[in-house]
Amino acid sequence: MEYPQESFNATTFAPDSFWARRRQVVRSQTLRHQLQMLKETGRYDAFKLKWHPSYSDPCAVWPVPNHLFWDSDVAKWIEGACYLLMDYPDEEIDAAIRELVGMIQSAQQPDGYLNIHYTVVEPEKRFTNLRDMHELYNAGHLVEAALAHRLLYKNDELLRPILKYVALLAATFGNQEGQKAGYPGHPEIELALLRLYKVTRDPEHLHLARFFLEERGNPSGGKERRHYYDVEAEARGERKNEVPESYPAPRSYWYQQAHVPITQQQTIEGHAVRAMYLLTSVADLVRISEPSSDVANKFLPALHRLWGNMIEKKAYVTGGIGAMKKWEGFGIDYFLPHGTDEGGCYAETCAAIGVMMLAERLLQIELSSHYADILELCLYNAVLTGMSLDGKGFTYVNQLASSEEDLSQRYEWFKCACCPPNVTRTLGCLGGYVWSWKVDNETRKATVNVHLYTSATLRFQVADSRVEITQKTQWPWHGDVSFLVNIDGPPVNLDLRLRIPGWASTWEVIPQPSQPDLRDGYLYLPSDWIQQHLEFRLSCPMRPRVVRPHPLTMQPVAYVTRGPIVYCVEDVDNSWENDHFKVGCHIPQGEEESRS
Amino acid sequence: MEYPQESFNATTFAPDSFWARRRQVVRSQTLRHQLQMLKETGRYDAFKLKWHPSYSDPCAVWPVPNHLFWDSDVAKWIEGACYLLMDYPDEEIDAAIRELVGMIQSAQQPDGYLNIHYTVVEPEKRFTNLRDMHELYNAGHLVEAALAHRLLYKNDELLRPILKYVALLAATFGNQEGQKAGYPGHPEIELALLRLYKVTRDPEHLHLARFFLEERGNPSGGKERRHYYDVEAEARGERKNEVPESYPAPRSYWYQQAHVPITQQQTIEGHAVRAMYLLTSVADLVRISEPSSDVANKFLPALHRLWGNMIEKKAYVTGGIGAMKKWEGFGIDYFLPHGTDEGGCYAETCAAIGVMMLAERLLQIELSSHYADILELCLYNAVLTGMSLDGKGFTYVNQLASSEEDLSQRYEWFKCACCPPNVTRTLGCLGGYVWSWKVDNETRKATVNVHLYTSATLRFQVADSRVEITQKTQWPWHGDVSFLVNIDGPPVNLDLRLRIPGWASTWEVIPQPSQPDLRDGYLYLPSDWIQQHLEFRLSCPMRPRVVRPHPLTMQPVAYVTRGPIVYCVEDVDNSWENDHFKVGCHIPQGEEESRS
Repeated sequence: MEYPQESFNATTFAPDSFWARRRQVVRSQTLRHQLQMLKETGRYDAFKLKWHPSYSDPCAVWPVPNHLFWDSDVAKWIEGACYLLMDYPDEEIDAAIRELVGMIQSAQQPDGYLNIHYTVVEPEKRFTNLRDMHELYNAGHLVEAALAHRLLYKNDELLRPILKYVALLAATFGNQEGQKAGYPGHPEIELALLRLYKVTRDPEHLHLARFFLEERGNPSGGKERRHYYDVEAEARGERKNEVPESYPAPRSYWYQQAHVPITQQQTIEGHAVRAMYLLTSVADLVRISEPSSDVANKFLPALHRLWGNMIEKKAYVTGGIGAMKKWEGFGIDYFLPHGTDEGGCYAETCAAIGVMMLAERLLQIELSSHYADILELCLYNAVLTGMSLDGKGFTYVNQLASSEEDLSQRYEWFKCACCPPNVTRTLGCLGGYVWSWKVDNETRKATVNVHLYTSATLRFQVADSRVEITQKTQWPWHGDVSFLVNIDGPPVNLDLRLRIPGWASTWEVIPQPSQPDLRDGYLYLPSDWIQQHLEFRLSCPMRPRVVRPHPLTMQPVAYVTRGPIVYCVEDVDNSWENDHFKVGCHIPQGEEESRS
Repeated sequence: MEYPQESFNATTFAPDSFWARRRQVVRSQTLRHQLQMLKETGRYDAFKLKWHPSYSDPCAVWPVPNHLFWDSDVAKWIEGACYLLMDYPDEEIDAAIRELVGMIQSAQQPDGYLNIHYTVVEPEKRFTNLRDMHELYNAGHLVEAALAHRLLYKNDELLRPILKYVALLAATFGNQEGQKAGYPGHPEIELALLRLYKVTRDPEHLHLARFFLEERGNPSGGKERRHYYDVEAEARGERKNEVPESYPAPRSYWYQQAHVPITQQQTIEGHAVRAMYLLTSVADLVRISEPSSDVANKFLPALHRLWGNMIEKKAYVTGGIGAMKKWEGFGIDYFLPHGTDEGGCYAETCAAIGVMMLAERLLQIELSSHYADILELCLYNAVLTGMSLDGKGFTYVNQLASSEEDLSQRYEWFKCACCPPNVTRTLGCLGGYVWSWKVDNETRKATVNVHLYTSATLRFQVADSRVEITQKTQWPWHGDVSFLVNIDGPPVNLDLRLRIPGWASTWEVIPQPSQPDLRDGYLYLPSDWIQQHLEFRLSCPMRPRVVRPHPLTMQPVAYVTRGPIVYCVEDVDNSWENDHFKVGCHIPQGEEESRS
């Protein structure tokens, strides 16, 4: 199971677990709430290709029309809904998915093209502004929605039109005569194509993803031997100082991580979500390439370098990334103010989801608790915080300090509504982040890497045996985790690897292995030990810790953390705060009581 | 004597004083060096109106041609040279001034127009881009040069053509039919017109300055009832997102302090030099208006508010202002990083000169040592530091922390060379900042406010008596100042007011006045006391102090200060540093020895 978006299905959260309860809220409240938002704002019906009055609104962020992301909002909701309906059938949601799929099918143009804006508003301008216009980003989310839809419905009703669209993209983009040597301003299609390739094994899908990644930032690309965004801008008649509002200066292509080829990028720059989606696809391409292949040799050092720069110098204590509001992204090294009144702490929810996605891909390349620690940090402190307890309020910006002028508040929806359905789909397939595993049916061997702790059961088949691994814990409030392994059928060689969190100053496994084998922060429990200890316990005592930011951040503050959680100090008397940041940062009331 | 640019002439620095020695370097080295730079770069001959190859160079900061400031570079050098030649005749400099004046005369167009760029390069585009193009800024500096020239040469050879140009401006700009309701993107003409008005008493000059100040930022100006910069941009065919490189976003008119009328501006924003020049003229307009006039009532609160915001929340410990490189100006409150690697510390030399100019005007409105303290702070720590000991190296940016990537270095000249001649002219008329005074010949009364301490003599006439006030001190190294008053002729009622610096935790006057009268940081010594004590001494012991920035700046640093000086810690082994920041920050070797 190579992608959490597929593998989540093998995990069942215990009904009283922290995450089962959050996912239950998403299923019962969030999906409905977001469906209502899609309907109220016009997104739901947009694939009917009728004019919507808002299409004439001035751009909030020039040159990007406000409705440009509508395709992706719908797609991400479908994707999340499909994940959640695997566990919880729901007639109303099911009916909406079916209706949306029908509308998407009917919106497809004869040649396969499938995009709301460029069919209804500017049909003559298809693919003339890859830099700004999110066409390929929307396409990527449609691909991901189609893959999720196929998983739930086990049919190709959505995948079929999407494959036709992808075929058009593959014909349009590339280095061949008559093709455009361009690549998306907002990455997403790349990671979607790689997921698609896993299903289709169509070399065209792999080829197109790789083209986008290798061509990106080429200073002498295409026939003209120039930067594609320059060529494209000139063809549009754009003037040299006509600058997208997210750019601090003309040709700030680092905003899109396209200032130089990816392999030459020394520091992580620009729009944080784009950077994460891009590097997720780079990591995935490396993952499926031979370890010493050209692809791995050139991209892996860049991945290490950019991840390292980000985590060491451009990430908040919560795992949030991207201080700068103007370009929703990274500032200079160590520029990590806490609030708008200090210069910004944008830390977009989607960016933290992107860190989780990237960390998960990197864990597949090299099993190191460093990646899983960051993944868990983001999950509790920068992603979960993006949704309110009732599942109907969302953050986009996640300042660490609220100010009167710019309150930390949750909203029911956004004009650019990327974050809310992104949280939905992330929690939808959360089980896939808990553990990863490999099975060799011939040798009857299986290896399970446990990345996150929560009460849940993983079930998979090894040849004719059924393996069941159950963990029970009150994580993130208690650091004790009981494991129970059950193999139904002939014996299986089951290796287990348990992540030992970086914050755990002490830990133990009971019964104690005679020679604990700890590598890169994972405790390797070999199959013979497991066979003798089908029940065992991991204990990582959670002691409150005071953490300080790097001195070069110039932040004279201290954070109180315990286990994976960074605590938030807030005043219940804040008159404006109806929705205290309890989850993730605060211990929900019920939990706190159960602990005392 | 209402302006330091005139009154300086009444002050003679003692030859061994700190400032006489600095001014001697400027006279003997800087004037020549800068003249050479003017010649080498093409500026000297530019008023000949021949094409210069650099006129075709691409803009360093779009849309501003690199040579656009050449008029002002020449004008500021003339201004500074004229001040210095009052004390030190110099044939070579004198000849250059005469030649330049001749060239300026000959460059004037029949209608009075006088600008290099818009005569040679784009003659058809006069006054079509007040927002960006520095036409009126250049005009203002020509006015100031002409006033300085008149002071030295006692003729109108430069003033005559300039008055003709000003007449053209007065006809062009205003709210009458057929006039342009515009105002300069870079203020300067306003303060120059007010200085000019003092000389000419031509109501048109006052009227034009006032129009520029009152119209600025009007959202519904002119016939079109819209913001002038919008109207003008549209007329040029500029597109909505064609953005000057200094703007972070379209229509960032706060860059020019033109986002709303001055009276409505709540915080100090945008380009720091523009803000200072603008407020200097506002203060001067208030100064010459009746205390309860409309002008005073509306502008004085804005002055207090903007000065307060700047000094409390947007100024460095040195008096430097403007952290943001992109717009050479103010960031958000308390955003005061020390170096480029922390987000910037632009602190342009000209901006600190602007603070001095503004503080001096404010002192004329209300005598408070707060203004003089800031004036002195800037002079030693943010202006004097802008020139090397040898008078031939200059800073433009004044970071408080040097980094390998962006060294703190002095340069012999700049493409945009505003700072070097600005230091020249400031030191040229420095005597005018030392004290201000008023004379009433009828009542034989004079009042002298002593703002700065240095070894110098002030001489002026009261009716038929000659007043001479001499101070002797080793300031800024020693806090003792001896005063000697000498009145040659019939008695004069002389009131003296001595600034008691804010940093002076103790101070005394010897002999001690029986009831010291301290008001707003000035010690009032009445004429009867002076009559009895023609010799007295002020002592302000200079104790080293450790100063910390406001906690909200998030700067975990401490500064060592003593007297008016903020000390600089630097490594003499820095291989790149040939010109250690000795003056102002460091004690020059000779001085240090003389103290021990």
